Amino acid sequence: MNKLTYLPPVQEGILEVEKLMRSQAEGFHPDLKAALDLLLSSGGKRIRPALTLSAGRMLGGDPNTLIPLAAAIELLHTATLVHDDLIDGSLLRRGIPTLNSQWTPGATVLTGDFIFARAAKMAAETKSVPVIQLFAQTLSVIVNGEITQLFNGHCSTDRSSYFSRIYSKTASLFETSATSAAIISKAPENIIEKMKHFGYELGMAFQIIDDILDFTGDQSMIGKPVGSDLRQGIVTLPVIEYCEHHPNDPLIKPIQNHECVQDDHQINQLVEKIHSSSSIRDAHLEACQFIDRGIKELMALPKSLERDALEEIAHYIVDRRI
Amino acid sequence: MNKLTYLPPVQEGILEVEKLMRSQAEGFHPDLKAALDLLLSSGGKRIRPALTLSAGRMLGGDPNTLIPLAAAIELLHTATLVHDDLIDGSLLRRGIPTLNSQWTPGATVLTGDFIFARAAKMAAETKSVPVIQLFAQTLSVIVNGEITQLFNGHCSTDRSSYFSRIYSKTASLFETSATSAAIISKAPENIIEKMKHFGYELGMAFQIIDDILDFTGDQSMIGKPVGSDLRQGIVTLPVIEYCEHHPNDPLIKPIQNHECVQDDHQINQLVEKIHSSSSIRDAHLEACQFIDRGIKELMALPKSLERDALEEIAHYIVDRRI
Repeated sequence: MNKLTYLPPVQEGILEVEKLMRSQAEGFHPDLKAALDLLLSSGGKRIRPALTLSAGRMLGGDPNTLIPLAAAIELLHTATLVHDDLIDGSLLRRGIPTLNSQWTPGATVLTGDFIFARAAKMAAETKSVPVIQLFAQTLSVIVNGEITQLFNGHCSTDRSSYFSRIYSKTASLFETSATSAAIISKAPENIIEKMKHFGYELGMAFQIIDDILDFTGDQSMIGKPVGSDLRQGIVTLPVIEYCEHHPNDPLIKPIQNHECVQDDHQINQLVEKIHSSSSIRDAHLEACQFIDRGIKELMALPKSLERDALEEIAHYIVDRRI
Repeated sequence: MNKLTYLPPVQEGILEVEKLMRSQAEGFHPDLKAALDLLLSSGGKRIRPALTLSAGRMLGGDPNTLIPLAAAIELLHTATLVHDDLIDGSLLRRGIPTLNSQWTPGATVLTGDFIFARAAKMAAETKSVPVIQLFAQTLSVIVNGEITQLFNGHCSTDRSSYFSRIYSKTASLFETSATSAAIISKAPENIIEKMKHFGYELGMAFQIIDDILDFTGDQSMIGKPVGSDLRQGIVTLPVIEYCEHHPNDPLIKPIQNHECVQDDHQINQLVEKIHSSSSIRDAHLEACQFIDRGIKELMALPKSLERDALEEIAHYIVDRRI
């Protein structure tokens, strides 16, 4: 992974966020603590908390409120992953065994619920009703996106349904991270709006890059086979690009008919073709366009160390390689 | 079921609560609306909303805030039932097919999550941070109780672990219904405290009666066989009473050893013995003691139509027969 370092106060803030998240199981059943420790041990860049803390600091927000806010956002994210992995039957995430690979479905459902509850508690600790409302609405959007995916399937090469899907799945929470940091910091309405757009654009780019990495990433790091989305019938931007540029390739016939590619050999061929085609580059270009629009929003704000740090996060999102 | 009529404004309020709950899927995937309609169609007395609305009215609360509060509480309750039924593999609830009996586990998990999200949104609409905090904490307590039951098993004849279990499962939300109604109504601290106790006592009694009805209720109405708790290894107050009074009955040996009674014939015998013993009456007496303590708290408040209505709800809880 490319190097990304946060501002020292943001780095310290993230340590506090981690501590706060881990403390959420205190006073409850010891297995909940074990589960939370396992889930938080995979680490990662904590990009959502970093976005929240950096944006909040830039706008003069109170760190005492920003820390629980960032914890709320990361916990919400964690809870959705717990239920997602259960539903998808995923056994690894970031190379670490998922909860559902070790626990019963019931215990996994309840642990996800518990983390939702603690995320809600953290959100309430910001004492900002608009932030709490936004938070609840974001959870509705995320879950609605998953339900839609489950019922409607994913074998659609329609660009707008792809964008709508990644908005629900990822960009909505990025948007909420930046927006709520601005609300907490009592920023004026026009700045809140700018931060909202900034978060949205970053989130969209983030998911596009994730979808690219599914084709180009290191299997052992991702913990799943190359092209795993396509294998599950999930059509992402690289596939959409490929279909647009190679409408007559017989391999994409099933996708054009909104069916999943079933044959293993055919999937391997298609994954290989997509990987070596210009579709990856084209999808990456689209992610960069999202980032550019995000940075443009940011540049309307006065220059500061924190603004530079946010710009760096934005660039990192499209530069990262697993 | 014994007749219980609410005050006309409370009855009207409940209709508004129902409408508000059903509207929560608007703008989301149509299957979520179908699920919510199914879940809310089983009706019931809506005793938690009635408690919230009656308590709030008694204390001069604003109906515009009490309605979303009552909806938040009933939605939270509904969401926990959706996940509970999935985990327990229950096929019927109040004679209506459960969601998990018709949908995949994944869709059921997500629908529960969606309802949690909408409950949180409703709670946020009260705009009361202490209420939202209490709400999030209550969800943590409920889920922690379920996790504890899942990991520690239920085959314990220990009275205090039974009471702790039914507090998590039921009384905590009754407590929160009454407490949050008082907070919303800006009642002074001592009144909030009284309402908290009142809600607690009602909730404890409610669950004891539910546990009694598992032995004495009409199977076709409950939608599960008589003694179904015991069949699942869940030891409730009538069983605890029976064990205390018949320590030498060989049928309870496994329970004394914290094991489940496995043999069907033996379970049937034990269920029959408990049913016809004084244990049912003794357990009922304990429920009545909870109710008496609750009513005592209530009587410290000035007499009013609403106070009488709350007293009626309290009496109904121990008088109800399915």
